[in-house]
Amino acid sequence: MALRFDTRYAGQLADENALNLISAEAAAVHATIHAGTGKGNDFLGWLTLPHDYDKEEYARIKLAAEKIRKQSQVLVVIGIGGSYLGTRAAIEFINTQEHNRLGGLEIYFAGNSLSSAALSNLLTYCEEKDISINVISKSGTTTECSVVFRVFKSLLERKYGKAGAADRIYATTEYSSHSKLYELAQQEGYECFLVPDPVGGRYSVLTAVGLLPIASAGVDTDILLHGAQDAMDEYSRSDNLFENDTLKYAAIRNLYYRSGKKIEFFAAMEPDFTLLGEWFKQLFGESEGKENKGIFPAAAVFTMDLHSMGQYVQEGERTLFETLLTVSEPVADILLTDEPGDPDGLNFLAGKPLSFLNRQALEGTRIAHYDGGVPNLLLEIDRADAYHLGWLFYFFEKTCAVSGYILGVNPFDQPGVEAYKKNMFALLGKPGYEGERAALRARLNQQ
Amino acid sequence: MALRFDTRYAGQLADENALNLISAEAAAVHATIHAGTGKGNDFLGWLTLPHDYDKEEYARIKLAAEKIRKQSQVLVVIGIGGSYLGTRAAIEFINTQEHNRLGGLEIYFAGNSLSSAALSNLLTYCEEKDISINVISKSGTTTECSVVFRVFKSLLERKYGKAGAADRIYATTEYSSHSKLYELAQQEGYECFLVPDPVGGRYSVLTAVGLLPIASAGVDTDILLHGAQDAMDEYSRSDNLFENDTLKYAAIRNLYYRSGKKIEFFAAMEPDFTLLGEWFKQLFGESEGKENKGIFPAAAVFTMDLHSMGQYVQEGERTLFETLLTVSEPVADILLTDEPGDPDGLNFLAGKPLSFLNRQALEGTRIAHYDGGVPNLLLEIDRADAYHLGWLFYFFEKTCAVSGYILGVNPFDQPGVEAYKKNMFALLGKPGYEGERAALRARLNQQ
Repeated sequence: MALRFDTRYAGQLADENALNLISAEAAAVHATIHAGTGKGNDFLGWLTLPHDYDKEEYARIKLAAEKIRKQSQVLVVIGIGGSYLGTRAAIEFINTQEHNRLGGLEIYFAGNSLSSAALSNLLTYCEEKDISINVISKSGTTTECSVVFRVFKSLLERKYGKAGAADRIYATTEYSSHSKLYELAQQEGYECFLVPDPVGGRYSVLTAVGLLPIASAGVDTDILLHGAQDAMDEYSRSDNLFENDTLKYAAIRNLYYRSGKKIEFFAAMEPDFTLLGEWFKQLFGESEGKENKGIFPAAAVFTMDLHSMGQYVQEGERTLFETLLTVSEPVADILLTDEPGDPDGLNFLAGKPLSFLNRQALEGTRIAHYDGGVPNLLLEIDRADAYHLGWLFYFFEKTCAVSGYILGVNPFDQPGVEAYKKNMFALLGKPGYEGERAALRARLNQQ
Repeated sequence: MALRFDTRYAGQLADENALNLISAEAAAVHATIHAGTGKGNDFLGWLTLPHDYDKEEYARIKLAAEKIRKQSQVLVVIGIGGSYLGTRAAIEFINTQEHNRLGGLEIYFAGNSLSSAALSNLLTYCEEKDISINVISKSGTTTECSVVFRVFKSLLERKYGKAGAADRIYATTEYSSHSKLYELAQQEGYECFLVPDPVGGRYSVLTAVGLLPIASAGVDTDILLHGAQDAMDEYSRSDNLFENDTLKYAAIRNLYYRSGKKIEFFAAMEPDFTLLGEWFKQLFGESEGKENKGIFPAAAVFTMDLHSMGQYVQEGERTLFETLLTVSEPVADILLTDEPGDPDGLNFLAGKPLSFLNRQALEGTRIAHYDGGVPNLLLEIDRADAYHLGWLFYFFEKTCAVSGYILGVNPFDQPGVEAYKKNMFALLGKPGYEGERAALRARLNQQ
């Protein structure tokens, strides 16, 4: 199995007896997902995407990526939330956090905040580079992306002229008049890629949203998709949680939650998985955090964060459980050598590879946290490569859908995300928000 | 005031009535801290550090930083936890997250994990560069740092010979035979800087631990210390929480906690503050997460994470409160312009600076989250510069000490951090851990 799920230190709620009590519920949820009869069932496109993706568009993605790599030194990916995290997670997971130091196309992410400091910094850097742009927004009206795209569009038109800019701008969006970005792209002649309707933002990394920038980073997306395909096949075979780890993981999470373990601490053993933790937080937090319920997702990197959050995990409020992610065969290893005089007392490790230390730290941590009242689940892959990442993406997506249904929520909507936007639009004086603006103003004046 | 503390959306627990009920407790804690009579009182060095630091060592730090900048292209800072987070937070806060792209000395952090992938990557990069090393470890026996230092020491000796390497290695450690690093430094002739006994790791950013690498990054540390000095003076003046924001913030945090708000969501409005959030998590999590209690600290960047964790904050479990950090005058700004035809519907923003949007997003968010049941506190500084960061460091440190004492714990120890290390040492076969090793082996075999 490409992904091994180890529940040795998961405690009693992961025992056969406990799982038997929830297995029928998990099986029913699995059936609901595959029948497409649950809440939010118009957003189930991710379920069969690894096989059903648009082959013609995929060929265009590969050609566009090749063109970007030939034409530019820098690709700026403009997107936020689901149009940002999965892509960046993939590029850092496969090409390392320092991918821009490796030579070849540099990739920067913009449109993911309203910070003028961050944007100015990137603009200055891009001034002297050859750049391409991939702007990603389903509706074309996400404020962060639209504002930042305006600025980069103007930079490109100044550098390359209108036609030259159009040749370097790629729009990933909805194909309809609902998308202002699509309309602009048609008018200006930007190549377009689709954000498919039945795939929500946080489930979209294996659509053009992720695939174009990931392919531009030089990743073999065939292999990424192959991993997701194999995961899809594996996790569709059975609705028995003892034979299907997405069901098992989802079931255990919910048993923990019901018993008062309200925080999931997702900790990876590799710094290059940092952004995968951020993607994980959006996937689970946005899917389950509603109706005043949901596990609160937190992310960490070990052993780094054992020296910051480790104290809390070991002895703070006992409301945590952990999900750990490790790699059994690191891409590179370093042998520790003997040093004359043993000045630091580490000679007992001579001849051991560094990965052995990382593994023993993991095992020691699992036992320590379990003993301290933090049950933990271990996910283990052989290699940090495109195949295993494709598998992981699918595994987490399916687990999340199952878990959300067991929790009793719609795992595919995000009604709460609009609240701050509505206030922001009103405060900014956006046309159409005059009523909200007057109400907010009155309220602010009363304070 | 350099730092403004705004409780407009903090809810009833931040009202005068509520605060009156806890003000005597806060005043008593403040007196305890200044009298040095509380738990962990041998770790109060941070309290007067901004004025009391060793002026002679400080002069050496500045000279060493100058030498590093002249001699090297890359400084590798080897440290973990408190010997990593504050330094990196400061460099990114002041010089941006992309500081290594700006020209001048590049700074990389190592020894903060046991990942062979991360270490190999950095080693390869350093192979062709002129490098200096600052290794930071109080005891000299932190596994991550010691192992990685061995590897870099060997690289430097290969590149520059033994004497040349010694001229490029700086050790920040305890000055005693308890530190294997100090003993090695004496033997090899490395320049040493002190980790002062009365300052714990997570409170050490304004000692040589942080100051040497921060000065090497070209930051004016006089100004950083000046900010901390002014904060020290400001927050020592009164033990009345209505006149002292460290007491007020600590009091409100504890009132929230007692009322079931168990998670503090620390959100900064600037991506360059990301690592400050990680420093914040260690400071508060490690200080308060003990005796099965403590607020769980989480960190985010807005508006970025409004598109990932925003849904949870708005509608998930109502166990959160927020602390927001913003800057009123960004280092750079960008004016939005009018575009013919208004293709994205943003022309209503023409003439507005981007910082105005970020501010309205903040205000809109505060109201939305408050309305959703998440009270929030706002910290506001004028500029993201060394002065304000020095102030912030001191503000959070003092707030944390006060808050820990109100909670009833020792905010200066971290007994739980040893648990995983003990297991790891046993599993690694470290001399002296034979008993633990046998016990663990027996236990693992039973499973």
